[in-house]
Order: sequence, then structure tokens, then C-alpha cells
Amino acid sequence: MAEDNPLLSDRHVAFMLHEVLDAQSLCALPYFAEHSRETFDLFVGACAKLSREALLPAYKSMDEEAAHFEDGRVHTHPVMRELYPQMVELGMLTAVRPFDVDGQQMPLTVASSGFAYAMAANLSAFGFCMLTTGAAHLIESFGSETLKRDYMRKMYSGEWTGTMALTEPGAGSSLGDLRTRARPTEQGHYLIDGAKVFISGGDNSLSENIVHLALARIEGAPAGSRGISLFAVPRLRIQDGALVPNDVQAAGTFHKLGWRGIPSIALNFGDGGDCHGYLVGEPHKGLSYMFQMMNEARIHIGLHAVATAAVAYQESLEYARTRPQGRLPGMAADEPPVPIIQHPDVRRMLLRQKAIVEGGLALVLATARYADLSLHAVDDTQRERASAMLELLTPITKTFPSEKGFESNALAVQIHGGYGYTSEYLPEAWLRDQKLNSIHEGTTGIQSMDLLGRKVLKTGGASVTTLADEIEPSLERARSSAHLASHAGALETALARVREVSEQLLGTAMENPMAALSHSVDYLDMLATLVIGWQWLEMATAAQRGLNASPGDADALFYDGKLRAAAYWMRTELPRVAALADLCVSCEDSFSGMDPESF
Amino acid sequence: MAEDNPLLSDRHVAFMLHEVLDAQSLCALPYFAEHSRETFDLFVGACAKLSREALLPAYKSMDEEAAHFEDGRVHTHPVMRELYPQMVELGMLTAVRPFDVDGQQMPLTVASSGFAYAMAANLSAFGFCMLTTGAAHLIESFGSETLKRDYMRKMYSGEWTGTMALTEPGAGSSLGDLRTRARPTEQGHYLIDGAKVFISGGDNSLSENIVHLALARIEGAPAGSRGISLFAVPRLRIQDGALVPNDVQAAGTFHKLGWRGIPSIALNFGDGGDCHGYLVGEPHKGLSYMFQMMNEARIHIGLHAVATAAVAYQESLEYARTRPQGRLPGMAADEPPVPIIQHPDVRRMLLRQKAIVEGGLALVLATARYADLSLHAVDDTQRERASAMLELLTPITKTFPSEKGFESNALAVQIHGGYGYTSEYLPEAWLRDQKLNSIHEGTTGIQSMDLLGRKVLKTGGASVTTLADEIEPSLERARSSAHLASHAGALETALARVREVSEQLLGTAMENPMAALSHSVDYLDMLATLVIGWQWLEMATAAQRGLNASPGDADALFYDGKLRAAAYWMRTELPRVAALADLCVSCEDSFSGMDPESF
Repeated sequence: MAEDNPLLSDRHVAFMLHEVLDAQSLCALPYFAEHSRETFDLFVGACAKLSREALLPAYKSMDEEAAHFEDGRVHTHPVMRELYPQMVELGMLTAVRPFDVDGQQMPLTVASSGFAYAMAANLSAFGFCMLTTGAAHLIESFGSETLKRDYMRKMYSGEWTGTMALTEPGAGSSLGDLRTRARPTEQGHYLIDGAKVFISGGDNSLSENIVHLALARIEGAPAGSRGISLFAVPRLRIQDGALVPNDVQAAGTFHKLGWRGIPSIALNFGDGGDCHGYLVGEPHKGLSYMFQMMNEARIHIGLHAVATAAVAYQESLEYARTRPQGRLPGMAADEPPVPIIQHPDVRRMLLRQKAIVEGGLALVLATARYADLSLHAVDDTQRERASAMLELLTPITKTFPSEKGFESNALAVQIHGGYGYTSEYLPEAWLRDQKLNSIHEGTTGIQSMDLLGRKVLKTGGASVTTLADEIEPSLERARSSAHLASHAGALETALARVREVSEQLLGTAMENPMAALSHSVDYLDMLATLVIGWQWLEMATAAQRGLNASPGDADALFYDGKLRAAAYWMRTELPRVAALADLCVSCEDSFSGMDPESF
Repeated sequence: MAEDNPLLSDRHVAFMLHEVLDAQSLCALPYFAEHSRETFDLFVGACAKLSREALLPAYKSMDEEAAHFEDGRVHTHPVMRELYPQMVELGMLTAVRPFDVDGQQMPLTVASSGFAYAMAANLSAFGFCMLTTGAAHLIESFGSETLKRDYMRKMYSGEWTGTMALTEPGAGSSLGDLRTRARPTEQGHYLIDGAKVFISGGDNSLSENIVHLALARIEGAPAGSRGISLFAVPRLRIQDGALVPNDVQAAGTFHKLGWRGIPSIALNFGDGGDCHGYLVGEPHKGLSYMFQMMNEARIHIGLHAVATAAVAYQESLEYARTRPQGRLPGMAADEPPVPIIQHPDVRRMLLRQKAIVEGGLALVLATARYADLSLHAVDDTQRERASAMLELLTPITKTFPSEKGFESNALAVQIHGGYGYTSEYLPEAWLRDQKLNSIHEGTTGIQSMDLLGRKVLKTGGASVTTLADEIEPSLERARSSAHLASHAGALETALARVREVSEQLLGTAMENPMAALSHSVDYLDMLATLVIGWQWLEMATAAQRGLNASPGDADALFYDGKLRAAAYWMRTELPRVAALADLCVSCEDSFSGMDPESF
């Protein structure tokens, strides 16, 4: 069945780009002036084609034959040597990078729509692209011209891969505790000494060289996160024009629940005292540089999560349409069984997946659009406003699809019944893949502290006001439609409650910051439920516009699906906002004050 | 770390049996008269010991080296040959069976407490016991004296194993469609011909013989579920006092996400035209007989789910107490990091697991107690009332721990961070195990239809009245405590709303049964949230009693944990009842009327 899986519905992606987001309007900005609806559609179409024809067919064997460690090297699945050049050629490394580094200067909004297919088809294969471009982008932004010439170019061209080397055995969520050391030398490079863990793609048999963007502490630097610097640490370094080994050793692989096509590695730097690292940017600013990559990565993780839920949704939809089992009330025992999509509870599970997947995609694309505007809008105010929205939405965009996507992936397994629990079908693999997304690039707990602490409380609630200003035009449009006015009313009530709660928490934070933050995860859940409601209102408005234009039968059914999913969200999920709001302001402390021995 | 995992807290199990459920009072019933608190504690203690010392240490290798199919036979892990006799000797097959079949005539309430340790330690190993005793019990209840002598005795004694052979490739949730045929012969046996799938333990290298309790249709029987009969179909049959092959062939194993220590098999009966089956009970009554096994199994699945969540909870609790990472607000960067249990969000995740695990265990044990009373109470009214409660609670007992347990297991992974995603730690394995519980022995959707359709609407709501009558004394006790009165008030409000909703749905069902059932899963979720609230009120009342008796420090902390978990449930989960209630009566139809092409 998987071989015919469309990954995402092309009709839906086109609807998002052209009927909801008006992606074409971005071409009015000078930075995107070379683009048009045609170049957008070409890119997205090419991504879909490569994903369906090459990436998805390789997925199962990459999951089953995970990378292995042998003779000091990590051997990745050989099919990656065929897939990677095709992804590179299509622009999966450089779609959004500027022309001057041979990029395509594409809006992230559009590139994300294309990437979603690749992630849905084979998230590990795409992972090599994501890491390499993220690492190269750090050199592009902060590195010297030498680093750009020697390393960045070969990474963007697909010749060498890259990684993010942050985590250490004792420093995961708390990067300030990292112990990898960097000792300056008179030649200008640093000598790096330390051990890293969970380095995705940290060794592989795909590329001749691997460039690690690693965090380390320069000798004598202050303790904590203020003493961390960023280095480029290649596996092979350039010396007198030749590539020589750089004392970077793979120490082993972790055996992961999912994402099994891309290895997660333990790396040792400088066991032989000869690991050269090249400082990127200024000393002690490593963590702030890394945030560029992490913020990009968080949006990508959200998209990964949407994509992993999407492919499973499509698979369970096809299964439900074709698997006969049981009868409807009133049918006789000797009538043939009906496809399970006829059973109301199966439809409920499908619509719930649809609401999560398409709501999640809308959120990621809306966030990408703010990212595009924050960098490339001409107007200062528009850039600042987009930047504020990007900041506010990033932790939600990372978290909502990761958490609800896991639920959605579990529903895809459930619809497959006993078969869903076996590796003869793929939903169990996607469920395993999905679980990582709530952990890597900042756990759900960390995202929630970022949202409530840094983005809401530290801005004095200004970000919530900005959000309300952005939602208002959507409410205004929906209010004027007889079909959507009740949704607008429900969303407005929820928004008012969110604003009230945020105000109250500002007051609480003055007196007791810990208490104000104690329900940060509930706050994130509440805000996500609201924001996804906003996205569904936007989609419903576009669908209603489509319906008003007297579409053909297929489009009428398509738009009806959007209206139903929007209604589902407004009636089933949006009411949760009120309960979550009560919880947030209650500062309910059953857990926070609990003695560790009372568990 | 896993080797020191206690599986469940002994102190908590003792609290449940002796301070909450007063298990000893069951000894006043003639059937349990031979028992005492001492025999109960001995059994539970022996289960805990075997589980910790033998079952848990074998878990990881049974997960990693799953059964394989070779030369027409399934080879299970060799360690099972050591474990199974120890489990049998302890009474894991016959603890609750009567003395006259060499059982221990133990209350299910107590036996379940012991079994929970075994399930937590190694659910696959215990699975062989559960299936064998379930199959033997069918022969005990409905089989001829010959079948009992020839087969049941050897199953209960642990010499032979047993299975439940229901599912076929085209008949899973809809058993009425099964096609396996049974042709009568003049010798009295039937000739069986058909294919079964997902038969747990359906072939193994653990026992000489395997007795399948199989459903098949006697030639000429009516279509659907009314034409199904039950047969004992051994792998080796007794012929002239010797064991001869009975034309039962293993056709292969399914590769499962979890439960990898017990194989799931495709079986063929009668490929060579010589598969003898022995009718159990009367023709065409097979499904009703099988319900005895299924109802037992549903309670066991609930307990499996609780146990799988429990062991992961214990593991993540120990990890949180010992893993240093990050600092509290106000601490300097050069102070050593704190154990992660100091972070409020980690405590939240731990308390949520605790609330689910201990709430789930309380529900299973309460249900087991009703099962004991429904069979063995002296008073007719008491038996009937217990029976009504057992009927109502069974689908909730099966489903709540399966669904919320999966969430709880995911939290245990989350607390382990990146390590949790690797097989170097065990939480990922328990997460994989847990997912089956919402699928086998009747999916969540099927349980919800059973609850709302058969147990509530078909009884005209009488079961909900009975539930309210059972909850009332708990409310009464709690109201008189200053500390618990507010919990009692919250539960009372929720109960009133549940009764109101049930009444309204009775009205809806008169006119439109499909509409009344459209939110059956939400109804189950609502009722489960209420019932777990009731269990937490009972536990809080017992804890308050314990606190009032001026306990030592350790007990004071223990009781405080119960009060906090109860508060967590009442304030965080119980408010969901109102939203779910609104949804149930709304008959919200976004999904039920949706065209399959609109997804």
C-alpha cells in the first residue's frame, strides 16, 4: 500500500500556498522578485516527485538496516549515496539560501511545502540535508571568508556533509555545562578536546568529509552558557592543500527507536591531541550563534512532525477506504462487510488526524511566512512585527505537531488494527519516528518555558497583543460569513480568555515567577489550541470562498472536508482553552511542592 | 538501572489491598474462607520476588531476540523453559481457579495484585500463563469430562500451553465473518479447516503440546455470529493413548512492535484434511462461551496496561532522582547541577504518571473485587449488583489504562530525554509494548460501543444509577473530612453531569441510535475520568485516615503523595468531564456525515 502513498495531498498543498497564504504575494518583495507562482509550483512538484519515486521506496530498508559501527567508522545505508545527490540537485540544501552562495533564494514558506514531502517520505534521508545546510548556514552567517571558501562551499554543493555537535553526556538540555575544551595555538586554530553524544550524521559513509559545528569552551572562559564558543571541526582538515585526518573519532552509535536511517553518534575530539578547530565568529558567542540554527531547526522539527503524521494519515485513510470489516446497523449477517471508513468511529479517528495534520501544516507554513517577512519585508514595522510573531510561534510550531502528531500517528496504527502493530505495515515505524520530535532541539518542557517565560512574560505580554492584532482580520473576514460567524465567535471568546490569563500571569510573575511558570506546558497547549483554531478559521474562510465560486464536484467535496475539519476543531478542541486557562491561573501546585520521596 | 526497578511499590500495593480495598473482608465469604491476610501477602510477595529476580532480568533479551520461524516451527526464547515452570509453580495459572481443579481459590483482587508484578516485569512471559489459563478455563466451564481429563488438566498443570484462536485474515473485530469450517464425523470429532492469524503463543518451543480454543462454523450453521461454535484443537491429539500430529501448521510469525517475547502466529488447520477438533459445549454457542474468556482477558489487558505504565514510571522516577541536569532559578553557573526531579515540569510528568498508574491500578482492582463478589457473594442482591458494576466497568478497565497508559509511557521516555529514545534504556521498549493494549481484545472503539450501547443505553441507564449508588458512600465519607470535602464536591458535580448526559442520550437513542452513539469514545473518556476520580477519592480518604493516625516520617510522605495525586486528578482531569459531556450530547456530526472523498 505504501508505494502509492501520496505523502501529502497535492491539492491541499496548492490550497495552502495559493488559496490560504497567497504565497505569490511574496514575489512583490525585492528579495523574491525572481520568483513566481510557476517557480514555486515547479519546486514543490519536483520535491513531491522525488519523494514519491525515490525517497519513500528507500524508507523501509533504511529503517530495517540501520547504520552500524565497524572498524572505527559508521556505515550508513548505501542507498543514501544515490539519494543524496538527487536531493542536493533539487536544491534541498540551498533552496532558501541567497543567490550569492548559489542558492535559489526561495521563500521558506514555499521551500517548506516541498520539504514536507521529503520528510514524509524519508525523514532520515532529509535529515542529512537539514543538518548540512544548518551547519553551512552558521559558517555563512558568522564564519571567516576562509571558512566559507574551504568548507561552506563544499557543504552547500553537497560534496561534504555537516553536523551540529552540541550535546555531551552531562550536557543536554543544559548546554552551559558542556566540557569540551578549546586551546588556542599560535597558528590561529584551536586544539579541541572532548566528547559529544547524539550527533546525528556525526559519522557516515555518504561523504568524504564531515564538518562538525561544535560548541566548546575556550580555556579560561567563564562558566555557564556565557563561556561557550562555536568551532568548525572537520573530520578531515585541509593542510597544505590536502585533506588530512583531524583526530575526530566515532566512538559508537546509539540504537534508536526511530529515525534509523540517520545514525546518532558518540564522537571523540582530540583523543590524540591533534584535533584542530576553527573559531566561528567571536569567542564566547557560540550559544547565541547556535540559536540561529536552533530556531531554524525548531521550525523544521515541527515540519518533520507534521510530515510524519501526514504520511501515516494518508496510509490509514487508504486502508480505511479499502479494508472491509463489519456491517452498519440494520445490515444482515450475509450481506458483505463494508469498508471500515463507513464506521463513525473510524471517521472520527481520520478527521482527528486530518485536523492535526492540516492544522499543523498551516501553522508551520504561517510561521515560515513570518520568517520570510522578518528577513525580507521592505517595511521596518512589518519586519519587526513578523519577527515578534516568529518568536512567539516558534515554540508552538515545534511542539504542537510533535505532541499531537504522536497522538495522530497512534491513531493511524489504531485504524490498522492488529496489522498496525506489525512491521508488515508502516504506521508502527512512523509512530516510532515521531516520538523523537518532542525531545530533540529542545524538549516540550523547554519550549514551554521559552514561550511563557521569554516570549510572553519577558515582553510584558506585548507578543500576545501582537498575536491578537494578527488574528483580528481573520475574525473580521469570518464574521461576515453566515457559515463561519459562529466559529469566529468561539475563537474570539477563546482569544479573550488567553489575553486575560496572560495578564493575570504577568501579575503573578511579579510576586512569584516560579508559580507563574508552573503550568507552562498547559499554557503552551492552550495557546497552540487557539492558534490552530485560528489556522482552521483561515482555511475555512478560503474553503468557503472556494465553495461560493461554484466549484466542480471534486472541489466541492474537497472544500467540504476543510469546513468539517474546522468545525471539528472549533467544537471539540477549542473548548479545552477554557479548562487550560483555569489551570494556568490556578497555579495549582500539587506537583511543584511535592517531596521527591512522596512519588 | 532496570535491575533495581521495583516494578510496583510494595507499600502502595499493600495500601491498596489493606487500607483501601479491605481485601481481608473477602475471607468472610465461604468460597475464600481458607484464605487470610497472610496467604494473600504470601502470594503477592512471592509474585514480586519471582518477577524481580527472574522475569525482569529476562525481559530485554526476550525483546531483542524475538521468536523466529524455522522449518515449520516457531522457536521461542529458550529462557521461557526456565521461567514458565516457576510461574506455574507459584500458581500463575491457577491462583483463582477452584480447589477441585487444583487451584488456590484466591480472590481475583489479590491474584491481580500479584500478577501485576509479573506483567510489569515481563508481559510476554506472563502472556503464556494468561492464554493457557484462559483456554483451560473455557474447557473447565463448558467442556466434556473427557476434554477436562485429557486436555484441561495438562494445561492447568503447566505441561501444555493453550491459545485463543479467534481472528482470521478477514475477521478481526467482526468475528461473525469467520470462515473456518467444522465438518462433523461419525467418530464424534469434527474435521477443522481454516486459517487463523495473530494467535499469540500459537506455536512455541516451550511445551510439547498446544491446545487451541478455536472458533469455527459447523457446516450448515447460520451466517454471522449466531453460527459459531467453540472447539478444542490440539497441535498433537490423543489417539489410542498416544500423541499424534493433528494437522495444525504454523504458517509464519508476525513481526510486532512490542510483546516480542511471545510470538504472534498465522496458523493453518486441516491443510492435509486431518485436523480433529472437539466441540466444547453446544453447537453455535461458541461466541457466548468465548465472552467468558474475553471478559476475563479485558480485565487482564487493563492490568497489563497498568503494569507496563508502572514499570516505566518507576524507571523514570529513579532516573529523575539521580540524573543531574540544569539548575534552579537563582543558582550560579558554577554550582553543581541539580537532579532533574527538582525541575517543576519533571515533577508534573512524574505526578501525571503516578495519577494514571495508581488510578488505573485502583480501577482494575476495584473491578476485580466486583468480579469476586459477582461470583462468590452469598447474598443474591449483592451478587447482582456486583455483576452490574463488573459489566459497566469492564470496558473502562480495559481502555483507560491502555489509552492513558500509552501517554504515561511516553512521559517516561520524555523524562529520559535523548537517552529515552535509545534501546540502551528500557522506556522505549515499554512504550512499544503498551501500544497493543488499545487494539487487542476489542479496540477502544469497540469497548466504547459496548459501554455506551450495551451497558448504558440497553439497561435504560440503570447501570449509571448503580454506579452513582456505589459512589455515594465514598462521597459521604469524604464530605466529613475538612481536607477532602472540596474533592467530594467536585466529584459530585461531575457525577451529576454524567447522569444528566446519560439521560439525554437515552432520549436521543429513541429517535436516532446512531447519533446517540456517535461520541461513544468521548463518553467512555468522560466516564473513565469520573471513575478514576472516584478511585482517587477513595485513596485520598484512606491516606487521610493514615495521616490522622500520626504515622512515621516515611508513611507521612507516602500518604502526602496520595493526597497530591488525588488533588492533581480532581483539579487537572476532572474538569474535562464538563467539556466531554457537552460534546456527547451535542451529537456533533462533523465526522459522522463526512463523505469518504472529503478527507
